[in-house]
Amino acid sequence: MMAWMNSESFAETVRTGKAVYWSRSRGKLWRKGEESGHAQAVRAIYVDCDADTILLKVEQVGAACHEGYRTCFFREVRPEGLKVVAQRLVDPSQIYGKSSH
Amino acid sequence: MMAWMNSESFAETVRTGKAVYWSRSRGKLWRKGEESGHAQAVRAIYVDCDADTILLKVEQVGAACHEGYRTCFFREVRPEGLKVVAQRLVDPSQIYGKSSH
Repeated sequence: MMAWMNSESFAETVRTGKAVYWSRSRGKLWRKGEESGHAQAVRAIYVDCDADTILLKVEQVGAACHEGYRTCFFREVRPEGLKVVAQRLVDPSQIYGKSSH
Repeated sequence: MMAWMNSESFAETVRTGKAVYWSRSRGKLWRKGEESGHAQAVRAIYVDCDADTILLKVEQVGAACHEGYRTCFFREVRPEGLKVVAQRLVDPSQIYGKSSH
């Protein structure tokens, strides 16, 4: 998955060992799994050469993706179009209540 | 590595099977490896759930990173600070001439 961080979410991620992002649409910290239960235990954190991209190595509980897949990258670009190449683990309607991501 | 694409670079990537990005700083297509020789043969292309992030699975020639590492994510965030956790493959000064990325 790809998500955004700000300095506050980064600091909390480092401090707690659980992935915390910044939800731009909701304008608040997004503690991954706080609603869905699909948390990410952080195993390693890397920064890139110009220090504006962070790579988290995580242990994923359940589905990272709000569509119910383990990864958000569940579709492959093929000559014939997009092809779903992963198994859906959970029904998206079962992940959240009224809120959405 | 993380880089940007526009529709033109995406189309060329799909068509040629070689990674092509959009250089925002130079305002032009960035055919990865055109100067450095460090090209990326694309093995698979994935798009994420909301179709605004692309994940390329590539076969990397040499160093993806302009710092001479195979990956741009060559530093790990540790309690004591950033630690280089990869081997430098090439001297950055040998990769490019006067141009920089």
